[in-house]
Amino acid sequence: GEAEAAGMAKNTNMRWRLPLVCLLWEVAMIVLFGVFVRFGAEADAHWEEEKREMNLTSDIENDFYFRYPSFQDVHVMIFVGFGFLMTFLKRYGFGAVGFNFLLAAFGIQWALLMQGWFHSFKDGKILIGVENLINADFCVGSVCIAFGAILGKTSPIQLLVMALFQVTLFSVNEYILLNLLHVKDAGGSMTIHTFGAYFGLTVTRILYRPNLEQSKDKQGSVYHSDLFAMIGTLYLWMYWPSFNSAISDHGDAQHRSAINTYCSLAACVLTTMAFSSMLQKKGKLDMVHIQNATLAGGVAVGTSAEMMLTPYGSLIVGSISGIVSTVGYVYFTPFLESRLHIQDTCGIHNLHAMPGLIGGIVGAITAAAATEDVYGKEGFIKAFDFTGVYQTRTPSIQGGFQAAGIVVSLLMAFVGGAIVGGILKLPIWGDAAAENCFEDDVYWEVPEDEESDVYHMHNPDKPASP
Amino acid sequence: GEAEAAGMAKNTNMRWRLPLVCLLWEVAMIVLFGVFVRFGAEADAHWEEEKREMNLTSDIENDFYFRYPSFQDVHVMIFVGFGFLMTFLKRYGFGAVGFNFLLAAFGIQWALLMQGWFHSFKDGKILIGVENLINADFCVGSVCIAFGAILGKTSPIQLLVMALFQVTLFSVNEYILLNLLHVKDAGGSMTIHTFGAYFGLTVTRILYRPNLEQSKDKQGSVYHSDLFAMIGTLYLWMYWPSFNSAISDHGDAQHRSAINTYCSLAACVLTTMAFSSMLQKKGKLDMVHIQNATLAGGVAVGTSAEMMLTPYGSLIVGSISGIVSTVGYVYFTPFLESRLHIQDTCGIHNLHAMPGLIGGIVGAITAAAATEDVYGKEGFIKAFDFTGVYQTRTPSIQGGFQAAGIVVSLLMAFVGGAIVGGILKLPIWGDAAAENCFEDDVYWEVPEDEESDVYHMHNPDKPASP
Amino acid sequence: GEAEAAGMAKNTNMRWRLPLVCLLWEVAMIVLFGVFVRFGAEADAHWEEEKREMNLTSDIENDFYFRYPSFQDVHVMIFVGFGFLMTFLKRYGFGAVGFNFLLAAFGIQWALLMQGWFHSFKDGKILIGVENLINADFCVGSVCIAFGAILGKTSPIQLLVMALFQVTLFSVNEYILLNLLHVKDAGGSMTIHTFGAYFGLTVTRILYRPNLEQSKDKQGSVYHSDLFAMIGTLYLWMYWPSFNSAISDHGDAQHRSAINTYCSLAACVLTTMAFSSMLQKKGKLDMVHIQNATLAGGVAVGTSAEMMLTPYGSLIVGSISGIVSTVGYVYFTPFLESRLHIQDTCGIHNLHAMPGLIGGIVGAITAAAATEDVYGKEGFIKAFDFTGVYQTRTPSIQGGFQAAGIVVSLLMAFVGGAIVGGILKLPIWGDAAAENCFEDDVYWEVPEDEESDVYHMHNPDKPASP
Repeated sequence: GEAEAAGMAKNTNMRWRLPLVCLLWEVAMIVLFGVFVRFGAEADAHWEEEKREMNLTSDIENDFYFRYPSFQDVHVMIFVGFGFLMTFLKRYGFGAVGFNFLLAAFGIQWALLMQGWFHSFKDGKILIGVENLINADFCVGSVCIAFGAILGKTSPIQLLVMALFQVTLFSVNEYILLNLLHVKDAGGSMTIHTFGAYFGLTVTRILYRPNLEQSKDKQGSVYHSDLFAMIGTLYLWMYWPSFNSAISDHGDAQHRSAINTYCSLAACVLTTMAFSSMLQKKGKLDMVHIQNATLAGGVAVGTSAEMMLTPYGSLIVGSISGIVSTVGYVYFTPFLESRLHIQDTCGIHNLHAMPGLIGGIVGAITAAAATEDVYGKEGFIKAFDFTGVYQTRTPSIQGGFQAAGIVVSLLMAFVGGAIVGGILKLPIWGDAAAENCFEDDVYWEVPEDEESDVYHMHNPDKPASP
Repeated sequence: GEAEAAGMAKNTNMRWRLPLVCLLWEVAMIVLFGVFVRFGAEADAHWEEEKREMNLTSDIENDFYFRYPSFQDVHVMIFVGFGFLMTFLKRYGFGAVGFNFLLAAFGIQWALLMQGWFHSFKDGKILIGVENLINADFCVGSVCIAFGAILGKTSPIQLLVMALFQVTLFSVNEYILLNLLHVKDAGGSMTIHTFGAYFGLTVTRILYRPNLEQSKDKQGSVYHSDLFAMIGTLYLWMYWPSFNSAISDHGDAQHRSAINTYCSLAACVLTTMAFSSMLQKKGKLDMVHIQNATLAGGVAVGTSAEMMLTPYGSLIVGSISGIVSTVGYVYFTPFLESRLHIQDTCGIHNLHAMPGLIGGIVGAITAAAATEDVYGKEGFIKAFDFTGVYQTRTPSIQGGFQAAGIVVSLLMAFVGGAIVGGILKLPIWGDAAAENCFEDDVYWEVPEDEESDVYHMHNPDKPASP
Repeated sequence: GEAEAAGMAKNTNMRWRLPLVCLLWEVAMIVLFGVFVRFGAEADAHWEEEKREMNLTSDIENDFYFRYPSFQDVHVMIFVGFGFLMTFLKRYGFGAVGFNFLLAAFGIQWALLMQGWFHSFKDGKILIGVENLINADFCVGSVCIAFGAILGKTSPIQLLVMALFQVTLFSVNEYILLNLLHVKDAGGSMTIHTFGAYFGLTVTRILYRPNLEQSKDKQGSVYHSDLFAMIGTLYLWMYWPSFNSAISDHGDAQHRSAINTYCSLAACVLTTMAFSSMLQKKGKLDMVHIQNATLAGGVAVGTSAEMMLTPYGSLIVGSISGIVSTVGYVYFTPFLESRLHIQDTCGIHNLHAMPGLIGGIVGAITAAAATEDVYGKEGFIKAFDFTGVYQTRTPSIQGGFQAAGIVVSLLMAFVGGAIVGGILKLPIWGDAAAENCFEDDVYWEVPEDEESDVYHMHNPDKPASP
């Protein structure tokens, strides 16, 4: 593009734009929270009266004790998990962790409002509790996923703009799936991963940079950046059972979700290692696969983990998703970039998009295959919430609606991503020129010595400092 | 001073001094624990009988299940949070993480005793349970804060001596506030942050080093040390809701504290980013601000989080504290150093002192504004513990006592800090000369190759290796 | 050996061998899980009926809520704790974290089966719940420990083979101790640490490499690798109270285990620091000791933590184990290598073997010293499960059986380790030549620039670079 030709001339100075956006939006949050958000019954000081009314004999019945440990695990996944997973680039660690921090901190506030209007609105107020915090983190998770596709190529303002729109669209999509289609998706294979990934891939397609090879020397990792990324990987991997079980029904459903996810992830590690080695001439393992594809097993049971998938079912799903994801990194990512002009920095197509689809499909099949024999009479109704107007829904119809949920999520992602991508393409957001992508120095004060040093080491024939 | 003129001649050899102090104190702990500390009813094997007496029908009513997850989060904050937050210096990572580990491990033992005598003493024994562990971690948190002010300038023995005295003073101050003034301060804005920070600032003032610019080259960060520090930042940020809710009343109070803190911290990130960019000529973000000021929102709701601050109130407090803290790093820290001779390595004045004061004030206002309408009749009494001799206390009187708590904490910090600073100034503790500050090599075996390498890079005109 | 003489000629290409082993074993897991593994009552959708039968009034009585937070902490210890603890080597970070990930992910699947057959087998099915997940993680912990002895010297296939056999032997040993000897060992001093460590030491003895000094330059750490290792250390240290309490009885036993472990670990840090400084001529602290010996206190109360060890008893045990472990690193490890030809990369003899023995002995003594007075009549029976055929067992007899448990664990470790070591010595597994040990480049794609750079720095006789 013409703008790119201008090179260094692009104005990436954030001095007034970023503060303005941050402060304006925070003021908007304060006003909207002031008008709408209040404590739910279990967090309100009137809880003693509530307890009496609900005939609860102990404070331990407060939802806080059912969900707070899972909430904290999810919180770690969003901020440390996604944040550090993206630090693998040699010169974009500040941006990875720092911008993820910024967009997630904004996103959770906006998500509390958007999801609150759809799901927790009573008498003109949004009543929040720990489940709302988890859902806000979930919603923001989809933005973190999309961030993975455009990592290193956008300004922080673009990320905030994207977060604003994506949270909005996420909430609409979630409402359609959960409320209108009455679909189950506790771990978000469809709402979080499929939607988030295809949204991000569409955005990065629209923002296609033809000259990105100019910053090719910065698109790799260094030894220690790969270790930092493993912190992110492991926290995502370890806490994924909490992710998939965090908002499931109390009792057996939470318990079951955790077990299924644990099994799926364990299997996924083995098939990822197998294919990572197999697809390399020298049989060496590739950190990119270990950092990412090992997590596909968590994505792929996101919908079905709370169902009676069974441990061996989980092993099968985890095994397949590890293979699909690793093969994706080796063959699909280069293809997407060269043929479809989709520049996917972190390979979210392999980690979230394809495993998300698998997750949606496995969920549909598992739902369609449900029987009263397997779930028990009460368990069957409870698991799929076949009450009220849904009393007559059969498993096969439920499976159909689950499948419809995948399609809706994809449509929302493509259409929404295209629109938001178009907005982000406006030349006012301060993104960097192609040769300055994947470089913290554009938006961050970077310590001098190390910077020049690393720069020298890896680009011996380039001039001293940028 | 004369001692400093001696330079390298200072004796920093810890060989007999450090072991002596560590072993003497550990023996003292064993003796005192042997005389005083026993398991509380909920951790004692007699619990079955206790359960019957208290008419509890389930083991889940054991306080362990209400507080253990929060305890573990707090534990991570003290050891990984504070420890890694301070690894930002290029050559003091071992000292940051290692000395924090040492002083905290000693401090929690001494705190179990000190706080036990004040709060858990029955029939000549201190009876401990999970709440005591949390409180011990809290108490040590105030020592970790003070450590931030003197980071890189003291010997490990000085830190142990400081921990001994500071834990003692902390416990006295806490007793005055919680028991005599009947003040609420579950997240410790006053007892932990205000006290800890002003104590540390007073100590570092007394220990003022006029020639500290001699180690100026080591006072900065390198690229990867900034990423290590972000691990600390994020764990503090993510788990702060657990910190502020860990010792609140069961049920709604814990639930509410977590929500308020979550909201405050989210808002704080946005205003920190805004001001970090705004106050830089080139609009670039500064990792020092992101690592620290983003946490001010947790400090600033430490007193009020368990009250009906409301989510929008939390956003306001978080927003303000992020601004104050970032402005502090840009303008106050240099001023404190040049004019008041307060050398504050980590900027605890910005992260803990000012936000701690804000927290105390917000707590006083929130308490003074409490009404039976907002809290419910029972909730009102329960929230402020207006029972027994405090039955007649009104919200505005409570607000007054809360404000008095701030003043008492400040006085204790200044007087205590001055005395302890004086003790630490004695020339027997083995602290390093000014030109060797912020250098792990003084107290640690440092791997050779890397050392000489980094040394060369940043000090090209110095001889090859020490 | 002859093979070693061949040097670089050794075939370390994993391309077909590693994938074959991974895929074959994963298929085996799927088949075995399909035949045997089902959800336990608390994770099954029939839970509603179960609840009614068991007269449970609330979902909070589901074991999930008693143990899931501890499970997640244990999970972090296995994957981040052990994984990062071993990243201290300058050029083996990928292998440390990555192979630990691989062997643990395989091991937990196999452990679910093995332990399931012994402990959760009903009507031809293994019924699993959260406690099984914890036990699987525990079992794999013993493999991670053994991995520490052979770190850097084996191929990933060898690790998978070792995991297969070690998990099997662990489960047999555990069955003998817990079911036949009726021994208490909730934190696994005997089953996990003593068995795991002596097993690993025997394996590394069998795999003795006479020419290992050829890779001596890579056996040390660099500055940042030591900081990565501290992440592992701290997570192990912080979460050890969860480890020792995770499978204790509900209520006071879990509560007590956590307190005892907290106390023991705190004391251990002080004595480790003391002896680390004391045993160095210059009195400097050694990161190897801080990273490892500080954890000995957790190992050494593994058996007794759930008993009435008392807080001061824990301080004593923790203090002693810190001393023993540090002294071990300074004196025993060199002795073991030079005289007994036991090459123990991580010093597991000091961190797990000796403290594990201490733990077994302390457990035996604490059990033998138990009285109805200290435990209460009911508590006494509950703590040692003196019911059914064990109704007449006295504390002193229990102490004897506890001691027998140590002996059995040692025998299993020596015999099992010798056999498995012999299998691993076969020349088909693709391990590296002596001069390529402790080098990620053998099995991993390593980023080029950094690699050559670090390589240069530490091999001064190679051409320079920066």
